[in-house]
Amino acid sequence: MQNRKLELKGIVPPMVTPLIDNDTLDKAGTEKLIEHMLAGGIHGLFILGTTGEAPSLSYAVRYELIKLVCEKVAGRVPVLVGITDTSISESIRLANHAAACGAAALVSAPPYYFAPAQQELIEYYTELADALPLPLYLYNMPSHVKVIFDPQTVRILSEHPNIIGLKDSSANMVYFQSLLHIMRDKPDFALFVGPEELTAESVMMGAAGGVNGGANMFPKLYVDLYDAAVARDLDKVRELQNRVMEISTTLYKIGKYGSSFLKGVKCSLSLMGICSDFAAAPFHKFRTEERNKAREILEKLNVKIVNP
Amino acid sequence: MQNRKLELKGIVPPMVTPLIDNDTLDKAGTEKLIEHMLAGGIHGLFILGTTGEAPSLSYAVRYELIKLVCEKVAGRVPVLVGITDTSISESIRLANHAAACGAAALVSAPPYYFAPAQQELIEYYTELADALPLPLYLYNMPSHVKVIFDPQTVRILSEHPNIIGLKDSSANMVYFQSLLHIMRDKPDFALFVGPEELTAESVMMGAAGGVNGGANMFPKLYVDLYDAAVARDLDKVRELQNRVMEISTTLYKIGKYGSSFLKGVKCSLSLMGICSDFAAAPFHKFRTEERNKAREILEKLNVKIVNP
Amino acid sequence: MQNRKLELKGIVPPMVTPLIDNDTLDKAGTEKLIEHMLAGGIHGLFILGTTGEAPSLSYAVRYELIKLVCEKVAGRVPVLVGITDTSISESIRLANHAAACGAAALVSAPPYYFAPAQQELIEYYTELADALPLPLYLYNMPSHVKVIFDPQTVRILSEHPNIIGLKDSSANMVYFQSLLHIMRDKPDFALFVGPEELTAESVMMGAAGGVNGGANMFPKLYVDLYDAAVARDLDKVRELQNRVMEISTTLYKIGKYGSSFLKGVKCSLSLMGICSDFAAAPFHKFRTEERNKAREILEKLNVKIVNP
Amino acid sequence: MQNRKLELKGIVPPMVTPLIDNDTLDKAGTEKLIEHMLAGGIHGLFILGTTGEAPSLSYAVRYELIKLVCEKVAGRVPVLVGITDTSISESIRLANHAAACGAAALVSAPPYYFAPAQQELIEYYTELADALPLPLYLYNMPSHVKVIFDPQTVRILSEHPNIIGLKDSSANMVYFQSLLHIMRDKPDFALFVGPEELTAESVMMGAAGGVNGGANMFPKLYVDLYDAAVARDLDKVRELQNRVMEISTTLYKIGKYGSSFLKGVKCSLSLMGICSDFAAAPFHKFRTEERNKAREILEKLNVKIVNP
Repeated sequence: MQNRKLELKGIVPPMVTPLIDNDTLDKAGTEKLIEHMLAGGIHGLFILGTTGEAPSLSYAVRYELIKLVCEKVAGRVPVLVGITDTSISESIRLANHAAACGAAALVSAPPYYFAPAQQELIEYYTELADALPLPLYLYNMPSHVKVIFDPQTVRILSEHPNIIGLKDSSANMVYFQSLLHIMRDKPDFALFVGPEELTAESVMMGAAGGVNGGANMFPKLYVDLYDAAVARDLDKVRELQNRVMEISTTLYKIGKYGSSFLKGVKCSLSLMGICSDFAAAPFHKFRTEERNKAREILEKLNVKIVNP
Repeated sequence: MQNRKLELKGIVPPMVTPLIDNDTLDKAGTEKLIEHMLAGGIHGLFILGTTGEAPSLSYAVRYELIKLVCEKVAGRVPVLVGITDTSISESIRLANHAAACGAAALVSAPPYYFAPAQQELIEYYTELADALPLPLYLYNMPSHVKVIFDPQTVRILSEHPNIIGLKDSSANMVYFQSLLHIMRDKPDFALFVGPEELTAESVMMGAAGGVNGGANMFPKLYVDLYDAAVARDLDKVRELQNRVMEISTTLYKIGKYGSSFLKGVKCSLSLMGICSDFAAAPFHKFRTEERNKAREILEKLNVKIVNP
Repeated sequence: MQNRKLELKGIVPPMVTPLIDNDTLDKAGTEKLIEHMLAGGIHGLFILGTTGEAPSLSYAVRYELIKLVCEKVAGRVPVLVGITDTSISESIRLANHAAACGAAALVSAPPYYFAPAQQELIEYYTELADALPLPLYLYNMPSHVKVIFDPQTVRILSEHPNIIGLKDSSANMVYFQSLLHIMRDKPDFALFVGPEELTAESVMMGAAGGVNGGANMFPKLYVDLYDAAVARDLDKVRELQNRVMEISTTLYKIGKYGSSFLKGVKCSLSLMGICSDFAAAPFHKFRTEERNKAREILEKLNVKIVNP
Repeated sequence: MQNRKLELKGIVPPMVTPLIDNDTLDKAGTEKLIEHMLAGGIHGLFILGTTGEAPSLSYAVRYELIKLVCEKVAGRVPVLVGITDTSISESIRLANHAAACGAAALVSAPPYYFAPAQQELIEYYTELADALPLPLYLYNMPSHVKVIFDPQTVRILSEHPNIIGLKDSSANMVYFQSLLHIMRDKPDFALFVGPEELTAESVMMGAAGGVNGGANMFPKLYVDLYDAAVARDLDKVRELQNRVMEISTTLYKIGKYGSSFLKGVKCSLSLMGICSDFAAAPFHKFRTEERNKAREILEKLNVKIVNP
């Protein structure tokens, strides 16, 4: 059996999930956000990841979002759907729904309550990939999931025809370099990097692209950065990287909790007039003080405030 | 508003979930297991906890199990239902179903994908407890959930009329002593201990009882241990503790993965002829070699092997 | 070869090191502190442990302290000397000096820069114990040392004639129960518990005693607690435990750093007029605000303030 | 007061410490190793770091090594001396000796037994740097030291005239990018990267160079990689990076312990006929089986085996 393929490289934003409350999608906001990102030139769209707060959403909301996004994107770019779950059966059901809606691929981080050993990961992903109607990207996210995909495990799983790549959000570049090296004879196996601070160097060293949360707000910036890295234009890379780091070291550091990245992105999108900033439990959106800080930062970044 | 109450002390086993496969309950085994534990004198029954593999089960299976257990127990002891979930909406739906089926109380560990800060825990559990139809036990399980309930957080949450106790599976006794101390003026707030190795000393120091996985197999042993601790019969305590430790240091150490406790319990129940040993993904039941080891250990413990 | 023995049970305080500055002992304070603790009925004295800030002290200061303490104690109780070091040669030199000064035994936590594997721990402690002039207690301190002594490792090392016990500061009572169980046929191998919150229950379950920092200030309290636990007087135990927890949850929680325990003990000893509160780099003693809080807490505990 | 300066960029190998036994330097091997690295074009030499096993060495050995290396290097490249210690007094004494011997600069990771808070780090390094006779590089090494230098802490400490740079061994590139960004207006503050797998991309993104253990064996490879990165020759970078990763994923993965990197480097140097492979306690050199594996790997890498 031949490996499935998806010709996908570049910037694939992990879309936030615009919400009215814990159980209600902000549909208008979702549509606006999709058009905003597509206008920025993104190469794909990833929904129901960490930035998409997938684990905090009920199944009803997840199913509805998949349908909505696939309809609105309407094939303009591939839609990737996160099916990460602690129950393999629920993952497969989500995947079938995604396929029926027209998604292009699936993304899965390991089950995140029990911590599987590497051999258990191999068995789990073999069983899962066997049952999936679409190709799958592995998702390495040790801070939230507790376990890491050992490079050797990735190598073994890459033999499965349904497993076509991996997104790494570990921020550990020795690990990522090890993946690039162990997969160097399989250039079709796509290695994406999560943290936007690392997209430039990762692409220069051989990565397929970036799954960068900041691209919800500034899609063109990350697309330009990706293009500069592909073009090996190091002057341009450093100039854009400076802007990326400006965002990273200010907008994502508001408030005192670990959730400041997510809240910062949602708050900014609200200030920009794109969608609601409601965050699903166990989080809450920024209060006025934090929102004011976000507004000031955006103004310094020359972003137009639509909804102060 | 007055605090709800549940007069529950003693041994409340966290029931394993007998399964035929990932999506099918072993109903006959479940019934047999319930009767086995009730015959041992347990004081309550906790389903859909960590030992119950709740996060690995589909919602359909969880709903079915709640109904089945409540019907079979039929009020002989209180049934506690785990509603731990990363989606607050799904937790509430589970809780409503549990109430409709006749459960006595609910148990919830913090959402386990995103790691909430203490203030976020307080807000989350206030929102959750407000919406619940039954009283709630907090469940401290840092190894799987990443966050701990600070004693100060527990104190604050204990003011909620719907929050009536806590089960601690941290194994950190300085922490548990801090809970006993900070709650010493609220004796109705029940503090249970998870690891069965600690039930004796915890009860002697003031705990309400033990939520001990080993009581799936040996309910009477843990009930006797609890009784000896309540009676302050230290000779008896040490004698029974020796047997508890014999189990802990042999039966739970088979195999090389972190899941050896769960697999050891399920395998033993299968060898004893009580229920199936199928473990839900991402785990698998013991292979022949490990099963043989478990059988030898049980034989040394003078347990009758029904299903070798 | 026969195992060495040291008939030591009960409360063995880990003495703080009274300092004038980073390089100068507070000799008068040290003498006063020793007499204060001996008057409280302690059973032994442990210097140069974690509470003794050993790793922060120069060798010159460590050598001087060993001599001073051995001279002042003058055989009234056994003196145990911490030789924990990252260099095995320096550990052995310290041990030889301790033996020359009249110390009774040595205490060693694993080398704490590199993290040895269990097999490396076995080899390290075999090599070390072979070279030591005095019997050795192992010191389990994973929070500072990164590695734990597996119970199986302890069992193997307990065969060495020079290794006579272990002090556990992990606070993990499942671990400590496993040690009690694996060593149950070797009652001469003494298992001490570090956290004072756990002395009562540990002794009731079979421990040899407590190495409790609070005994610097309140030696009699911990001696009484030990005696009550040995006498199985649970009413008395609970009454004294309440006082232990009162101290633990107030005096050790001042300030916002991880070092609040050490600073709280040193500050209290200064307020009680016993010795200086200087803390060696990288720590600093409490500033006025924290000192005032400590004073208030001591006053509530009915401790006489000599040096406000 | 003006900041001190040291014009140092490029490859600064963290030299292993050749040993005959725990207390005896392999002097001939040390000299050979120095010449081997200098012949490869290295830009500086760092002794008594992690790769140098400094914490495992007695002070006598450390003092002797400093003198030996400074004499042999004789100013051909700057010698950097690690003074990391848990006792600030011993750090300062080491520093004074290094200055007397002609070292160019010092390197210090935070005290590694107690874990200081950020404010405590600031106070500690201010006190230390005030007392030092030579300029200082901070050394970020969280895996061994437990704490990290927050970028904000680095920024504050960079105001001290005696603190001139930082070596980061965290492997976390989001962190390193944050350092590059927060220090972007102080180009004289030199940021070096530890893991050799990251030297290329770090230098392209603005780092001063690499402190790479592999340069003990293959100094020219890392110098060439550095030169290619400076020249922005991405084809050359990728070709050399492939060789770096070949070494990283084979030679450093022999054996089953965390110490396989160090043992792999020392064993290779022994096979190459350069120096002894003795590793200080708590480690041991490779046994025959592992040594044979290392030899095979080196042969595949076309390295001449002098001492099989």
